[in-house]
Amino acid sequence: MYKPKINTAISSILDKIIGEMKNKFLIDYYSEMKDYFLAGGKRIRPLLTIAAYNGITNTTEDKIVVPSVGIEFLHNATLIHDDIIDKDDFRRGKPAFHYKFALYHSKYQFKKMNAADFGTSIGIIGGDTAFIVGSTAYFNKYFSMELNLNSIRYYRQAFTEVIHGVLIEIDMVNQKKLSIDEYINMISLKTGALIEKSLLIGASYAKFEKEYTPHLSTYGVNLGIIFQIIDDILGTFGDEKVTGKPTDGDIREGKHTCLLIEAMNNLDVKKKKYLVNLLSKSEMSEEEVNEVRDLFKEADAINSCKKLASKYYEEASDALEKLKPVVNESEIEFFENLLKFVLERKF
Amino acid sequence: MYKPKINTAISSILDKIIGEMKNKFLIDYYSEMKDYFLAGGKRIRPLLTIAAYNGITNTTEDKIVVPSVGIEFLHNATLIHDDIIDKDDFRRGKPAFHYKFALYHSKYQFKKMNAADFGTSIGIIGGDTAFIVGSTAYFNKYFSMELNLNSIRYYRQAFTEVIHGVLIEIDMVNQKKLSIDEYINMISLKTGALIEKSLLIGASYAKFEKEYTPHLSTYGVNLGIIFQIIDDILGTFGDEKVTGKPTDGDIREGKHTCLLIEAMNNLDVKKKKYLVNLLSKSEMSEEEVNEVRDLFKEADAINSCKKLASKYYEEASDALEKLKPVVNESEIEFFENLLKFVLERKF
Repeated sequence: MYKPKINTAISSILDKIIGEMKNKFLIDYYSEMKDYFLAGGKRIRPLLTIAAYNGITNTTEDKIVVPSVGIEFLHNATLIHDDIIDKDDFRRGKPAFHYKFALYHSKYQFKKMNAADFGTSIGIIGGDTAFIVGSTAYFNKYFSMELNLNSIRYYRQAFTEVIHGVLIEIDMVNQKKLSIDEYINMISLKTGALIEKSLLIGASYAKFEKEYTPHLSTYGVNLGIIFQIIDDILGTFGDEKVTGKPTDGDIREGKHTCLLIEAMNNLDVKKKKYLVNLLSKSEMSEEEVNEVRDLFKEADAINSCKKLASKYYEEASDALEKLKPVVNESEIEFFENLLKFVLERKF
Repeated sequence: MYKPKINTAISSILDKIIGEMKNKFLIDYYSEMKDYFLAGGKRIRPLLTIAAYNGITNTTEDKIVVPSVGIEFLHNATLIHDDIIDKDDFRRGKPAFHYKFALYHSKYQFKKMNAADFGTSIGIIGGDTAFIVGSTAYFNKYFSMELNLNSIRYYRQAFTEVIHGVLIEIDMVNQKKLSIDEYINMISLKTGALIEKSLLIGASYAKFEKEYTPHLSTYGVNLGIIFQIIDDILGTFGDEKVTGKPTDGDIREGKHTCLLIEAMNNLDVKKKKYLVNLLSKSEMSEEEVNEVRDLFKEADAINSCKKLASKYYEEASDALEKLKPVVNESEIEFFENLLKFVLERKF
């Protein structure tokens, strides 16, 4: 029900900027960005902000819609930079932001740069822009300066935590050592932080009681952790046609996924060694990727990961239970359904 | 006199973050960033914020030092991303931020990524981090929430304008059309904005009278324009040993510098055609670079550019004149000297 309003808020922010631009390329740039932002997305983060706000204030006011899209811009900022880092030209079957501009490059008659470099350059700046545009959501006249500043603080914190998560992930890929604690820390930051801050921003605007905030945080971070664990499973064992993502990427990139960590825990020394040996290759054949996949199966890694996810599911459910006295029933239900959906999703 | 205090403020902000980190890589990451930030820099932007504040309030309080370093972080954020875009591994003879991490990569035993990709990835995130860390400068307890929020607004605006400048520049490189107006607009955004906002942030904290603010803006933007015009000249005709920058980069990259635009204005049709032809090559020999340089000389492009810079110098001087009734003499003098220095600098 809120999704069209969220999309309208995203459009309006970008349309306003486009309207102010005089330079033709900047108009094209922001138009491509609008296109990219509106091409898809479940808008989970804005919906969480709105649900937190409505659930706490017991209202259904529209004034929270604009602030709710801030984190969605930030989310997209991280996707834009991630796709450059991971060299992914497509995301869910659609061109990545930087790749849109590699394609745009063909419009030029005079090609001093090559298309790929042009795309990367615009993509680096594109992430910066998305981040900066998102913060406009908190210069909001319907809320006090203090509440807006509070949100900006959360927004900064969210970006910082995502950055730390991505940095730890890049470092981990080059480390031989695997640790489930480090993995959980990494995904709490990389994926949990944005979800948590979406809720906290909604709660902050609703002037939520401080003593209940930690429960909202637990729910948010754990939702992110579960999302990422399932994402890891789908990233290797999902249906490419449904997820729109190749299922060999994580293995080839040597990502420290939940699957890999659990497999290393469960396999015997000999097979563990064999697995490390496979993963240390700079180029892997399709057969070798399949061998890794088979070792994951042999180690029952999927079930180990699901068990791990269930642990965080229980914690999140408990947190929701504690929020019941101060959050509307219908929003608690929304949070519960989302939690179930994230654990059980196949895409 | 303020430079050591500025460097201390930069160190403190990063030391505080380093102290909070537990992950070894994040500690290394922020330590490398601190190293990079403190390796050099004239601290012009913080000095401008401090001079504006002190000149207006007629005080010499230290509480403006911390907010003054915000734009310096932002400036470094843009340098980090620019060096990736321009593929410059060195800046003033020292490793660029991304290149520091290409080198750091050798520390890993298990190398899943290659060093260059690792460096670029960390560099993309490094620019993001520098931007976000810089904004902490405005969460300042010595100033009111309103004044801090005002600075955050300027900070966002500064980043947006730099981004627009860089985007226009990248677009221009691929355009055949040259225009002095577009060039001035581009450098006002790319270089002028940060200088202007440094002054406006100082003035805002000093609660400067609104009617005088436009003169401060004019001075700041023009200082940036002059800086960039001279930078263009030094970029092709400077002494590499003094500037620490190769003098063929701009020509090879086909940058729309002041020199190129003025040369195209002054040369006859035949030579103009020849110049365009030279520049449209994707690879240029040293001889061809020299031919371009000779055509610039023939067109008396250096003098045309200097004449252009003088026009902006006069405007900036007039603006300072108008600020005399409301800004301390000693700070006006500092602004005047800086203006002269920027016009006459050889490095």
